[in-house]
Amino acid sequence: MNAPVMPETLAAPLPDALLDALQRMFGTRLSTTLPVRQQHGRDESVFDVPPPQAVVFAETEAEVAQAVAACAAHRVPVIPYGAGSSLEGHLLAVRGGISLDVSRMDRILRIDAEDLTVTVQPGVTRKQLNEALKHEGLFFPIDPGADASLGGMAATRASGTNAVRYGTMRENVLGLRFVNANGEIVRTGSRAKKSSAGYDLTRLLVGSEGTLGVITELTVKVHPLPEAVSAAVCFFPTIDAAVRTAMQVIQIGVPIARCELLDANAIRAVNAHDKLGLKEQPMLLMEFHGSEAGVAEQAAVVQEVAGEFGGEAFEWATTPEARTRLWTARHHAYLSGLQMRPGCRAVTTDTCVPISRLAENINASIAEVEAAGLPYFIVGHVGDGNFHMAYLLDPALPEELATAERLSAQMVERAIALEGTCTGEHGIGLHKQAFLRDETGDEAVAVMRAIKAAMDPLGILNPGKVFAV
Amino acid sequence: MNAPVMPETLAAPLPDALLDALQRMFGTRLSTTLPVRQQHGRDESVFDVPPPQAVVFAETEAEVAQAVAACAAHRVPVIPYGAGSSLEGHLLAVRGGISLDVSRMDRILRIDAEDLTVTVQPGVTRKQLNEALKHEGLFFPIDPGADASLGGMAATRASGTNAVRYGTMRENVLGLRFVNANGEIVRTGSRAKKSSAGYDLTRLLVGSEGTLGVITELTVKVHPLPEAVSAAVCFFPTIDAAVRTAMQVIQIGVPIARCELLDANAIRAVNAHDKLGLKEQPMLLMEFHGSEAGVAEQAAVVQEVAGEFGGEAFEWATTPEARTRLWTARHHAYLSGLQMRPGCRAVTTDTCVPISRLAENINASIAEVEAAGLPYFIVGHVGDGNFHMAYLLDPALPEELATAERLSAQMVERAIALEGTCTGEHGIGLHKQAFLRDETGDEAVAVMRAIKAAMDPLGILNPGKVFAV
Repeated sequence: MNAPVMPETLAAPLPDALLDALQRMFGTRLSTTLPVRQQHGRDESVFDVPPPQAVVFAETEAEVAQAVAACAAHRVPVIPYGAGSSLEGHLLAVRGGISLDVSRMDRILRIDAEDLTVTVQPGVTRKQLNEALKHEGLFFPIDPGADASLGGMAATRASGTNAVRYGTMRENVLGLRFVNANGEIVRTGSRAKKSSAGYDLTRLLVGSEGTLGVITELTVKVHPLPEAVSAAVCFFPTIDAAVRTAMQVIQIGVPIARCELLDANAIRAVNAHDKLGLKEQPMLLMEFHGSEAGVAEQAAVVQEVAGEFGGEAFEWATTPEARTRLWTARHHAYLSGLQMRPGCRAVTTDTCVPISRLAENINASIAEVEAAGLPYFIVGHVGDGNFHMAYLLDPALPEELATAERLSAQMVERAIALEGTCTGEHGIGLHKQAFLRDETGDEAVAVMRAIKAAMDPLGILNPGKVFAV
Repeated sequence: MNAPVMPETLAAPLPDALLDALQRMFGTRLSTTLPVRQQHGRDESVFDVPPPQAVVFAETEAEVAQAVAACAAHRVPVIPYGAGSSLEGHLLAVRGGISLDVSRMDRILRIDAEDLTVTVQPGVTRKQLNEALKHEGLFFPIDPGADASLGGMAATRASGTNAVRYGTMRENVLGLRFVNANGEIVRTGSRAKKSSAGYDLTRLLVGSEGTLGVITELTVKVHPLPEAVSAAVCFFPTIDAAVRTAMQVIQIGVPIARCELLDANAIRAVNAHDKLGLKEQPMLLMEFHGSEAGVAEQAAVVQEVAGEFGGEAFEWATTPEARTRLWTARHHAYLSGLQMRPGCRAVTTDTCVPISRLAENINASIAEVEAAGLPYFIVGHVGDGNFHMAYLLDPALPEELATAERLSAQMVERAIALEGTCTGEHGIGLHKQAFLRDETGDEAVAVMRAIKAAMDPLGILNPGKVFAV
């Protein structure tokens, strides 16, 4: 069992000299008030950890560098903070320290439309970026659901609904600037589409969860808005039928842009929340991007495959307004799902397996949760082999948390046996450290620790995350 | 100027105890004969370095581990060797040591057609893999020209003609096994399409040029053979017109599968070599993959764009035989080009810039080489912003090497100013170490060195490459 890492005892008080130094740098942008600290010490995870001891709001890269250097001088932890939408305890101050909020670093620095790249500060959110891009006929595809910051999305190697076609942050970040543990600024990558120049520090930072550096600038790929976009929902007699349709669509090479699963529980939740009147059956929500002819061709293939698995009641949407209505179901699923059990907290799984093993993983996971009797719902990026099962827990019943953790551990064990991963897109954080070891082995974790020790010898950068240093 | 790193003085003789140990492990698969050593100490680069002191031919991962552990015990360098087709001095024994030849580890371990993944030993070559895959209706797209080994292609982050659509080794390696500097086996990644599980060790090893570990197994993505493939050549009045056509094709989002440039010099060379009878004008060689309708649609768009830039004499090929004839020009360009100046050696550049800056980089590079009066030819993966200019040098005239190095340095300086990279796909090796520093800065190189020191504290893994440790 993968018990959550327990927070350490309360950290020592912050040194006065550090607070004085931060006060000089940040003035009123240093806060030690409890509400601000609490806001920076709370996330979607189930952990109850004391908030950071102070919060600073950086507005420039130089300020990030100064803050990290000051914390290094006093050996005080620094926890980067973007939009606060991470799910695995990434932002929790388990060793005390300073929350370094970069959300005010929210400028889009350059849009290079001819090269399909943009350069942004880390606090820019994906919706903000897409709003600016649409005037250029471009879009940024990574959509993890929340309106996350791009710095945070890079730090957790986020992906989401469009990853099946456009890849994840791993594929879409071309270069970075970050502040290292000494407070120095490091540049990685370039605006070239490919490079063989030395170690791939860009992709080492992507997914490093704030433990190797504080990202201060990102250059990411963007894409031309497709000439035609078509979305469809389709309902299936069973989850298995929906999943097998998704599997076959991927296996025959349809370049589908989105391929999302909602189970009947999730549909019931969004129907209750948004009065959508959808059939309360397993549903695939798909989107096709391309030329008019290409989209029609893809849609026809998918419709045929779905038909073979009993898929019916196709509903198509080609205008932005009609697509928005269909996507409401997906985008509201998580919050609607939580409202199915008022006052509940959720433990959400994130396994990802090779596409041929997806039905096996989902079917077994459903059998286990049904046997355990916990309320749950499923949403999934099934085109990637990734899905989320949310267990809805009554916080007053600690045995439910234990049950959810047991079910989650069983699912992860199975995903690893199926040659998959414990986390497709949420990251390790506090919650999955034992799973990381199970998945990749002691030797790989030892290499990760050696890199961490080399790049952050004092252990001040988001300590206790990925592995307990 | 980026003078080549000079080899150190001759290494100390190998310790007898190490030779005895390797003899016990490898028997007749240990060689200290001069021809075998010379064969493992020679590549396409212009460096003249003494050969490795011994060569071992590993047949299993366990043997790789044992060989590395033995070398570590004696602090003797280990240089991984695949197909020997690298271009920047990667395999040269600049500090002496053992060449660890993995070319006999050439088994395709698994083809998981349903998941579009294959798992191979590092000595499997790309042609060998494609031969095995074609019976499954699949292909492996990365084509660097040479029939390189997949281990070597991963180690140099290779790409080539299909990268414009399918990405490079960076995007196509899902997971690895490697032997670290202690002789331990480390696993990275999984067969899942995406993951957020800890630091991205897979992509740290990809492009590490044998300096962080010896790759012993790779799981890579493969792709369904497209339903339709169409290739075309088109001739242009000027290089600039050809390059601007490629730029516009990329910028409007045509999913072209290959987009290669040959200049008139390269065409003259392949005409002389292969009697192809091609017009001796700048040429784009393009390939389209997709459905029948999709391919036709792409081709029509490209033909229109080319026409705007004076492109003419389109020649189409849709059968495999006809395509092979067109691609002969590209695949024979390098060797044909060398034969234009009998006895010559080549210095080949590899800059890659954002697509909008490509014409500027190519045009200025041509003006410089023409002014200097060196024979040259150009081939290029122009859809990626990457091209190679080969300067043809008389080895008896050292001033020609100096001129080529000066021209290469000017081109790199310009590519960096244009926000590109000194190497799109060949790697740093011995040749581009100063360029790496110019490109990414001292801080990033310091991070790379810290990682190298953490993962290989004795400095035995391919020492002197990427940076002189």
